[in-house]
Amino acid sequence: MEAGCGVGAQTVTLSRNSPQALITSVDISEASLGEARRRASAAGVKNVRFKRADIFELPYVPASFDHVFVCFVLEHLKKPLEALNVLAAMIAPGGTITVIEGDHGSAYFHPDSVAAQKAIQCQVELQRRAGGNANIGRSLYPLLCEAGYREVRVSPRMVYVDSSKPELADGFTRRTFTAMIEGVRDSALKASLLPEDIFDQGIEDLKRTALVDGTFCYTFFKALGVKV
Amino acid sequence: MEAGCGVGAQTVTLSRNSPQALITSVDISEASLGEARRRASAAGVKNVRFKRADIFELPYVPASFDHVFVCFVLEHLKKPLEALNVLAAMIAPGGTITVIEGDHGSAYFHPDSVAAQKAIQCQVELQRRAGGNANIGRSLYPLLCEAGYREVRVSPRMVYVDSSKPELADGFTRRTFTAMIEGVRDSALKASLLPEDIFDQGIEDLKRTALVDGTFCYTFFKALGVKV
Repeated sequence: MEAGCGVGAQTVTLSRNSPQALITSVDISEASLGEARRRASAAGVKNVRFKRADIFELPYVPASFDHVFVCFVLEHLKKPLEALNVLAAMIAPGGTITVIEGDHGSAYFHPDSVAAQKAIQCQVELQRRAGGNANIGRSLYPLLCEAGYREVRVSPRMVYVDSSKPELADGFTRRTFTAMIEGVRDSALKASLLPEDIFDQGIEDLKRTALVDGTFCYTFFKALGVKV
Repeated sequence: MEAGCGVGAQTVTLSRNSPQALITSVDISEASLGEARRRASAAGVKNVRFKRADIFELPYVPASFDHVFVCFVLEHLKKPLEALNVLAAMIAPGGTITVIEGDHGSAYFHPDSVAAQKAIQCQVELQRRAGGNANIGRSLYPLLCEAGYREVRVSPRMVYVDSSKPELADGFTRRTFTAMIEGVRDSALKASLLPEDIFDQGIEDLKRTALVDGTFCYTFFKALGVKV
């Protein structure tokens, strides 16, 4: 099961990496599922069935999945521990779970910038107010342990960018991370989290880190656990 | 050349990893060199000669070294760029440099703690006042490039600790990082950087991250460059 597939950003990759698996991708949003279905269809994916469902009310028989994959989902949930418990119930004994999350507190860069740090904090604060946790990556280990998984192993996947890797400076620093922070501009200003000029300076300073003498660091966390 | 060998914490490892090399380990402190000599002697090291010298006034013929190794040194220097320039002059064309530094801004942990962050900032600020830069790891790439090295490659070495690795929780989180921050307690309080109770709470909170449900992250940066 891919729990919380969203628009299917990972679904085609999952399908290709596990061509022998029958994959069930669920999401709470019918609109997102529509996009995910289009993407999968365009890629010729045959081994995925899509289903609209709430992660907390899954319409499946307990212990009926061999593996659950959860990517960039727990960070948005008010109750990530309960979600891991519900998913554990879906996994057959000896089955496994993969959880992948980012952690915005792992972002640091050169040149350093207080304005950029504050702009990032706007995103963290807005996600917190929406019930989520943008810094959840560092706590996957205790979360999976507390949810009863065994043999929990967490491996950080650090993205380090300097100008020897221009494709990462553009694709990750600029178009992924900075674009995401820039995306909360209106919400951050509306909530008066930061003066407009500081926020905009922060975005400029983040873009600055993608230039020839800049560096940028961010870490994703991948956790594996076994259902007893 | 090992530039800034200190008490020889890396010297025996360097010697063993390169038994065919003739290593010159220099340091500005005669007291540190005495300890380094004792350690090397106790380990039966035969291929290292020690020399007291200032990194900015090295008593050697230019271009006479094949490789320079610098570990946890630039972070303490007022002029790290000039040091890299001086060392470049010592390296033969086509020779290489290895630089290893930490970055205290790469430290984050679970449970998160504002007091712990502030205690760490005391160490960063004291090092800054002494002319150093505790966050230098992230800027090794531009520093080496600006000093004229070519083919600069930086690889981060992230230390991730959770209770599945109790030896790291004890050896790194507790006895290395937390002990280092605790080591600036008197200086931080004397400089009124933080109220005593907040500092002590920060240390307690850092120790807390080494318990069964805690996690701790820190990243070292290793840079390689080629002298043209």
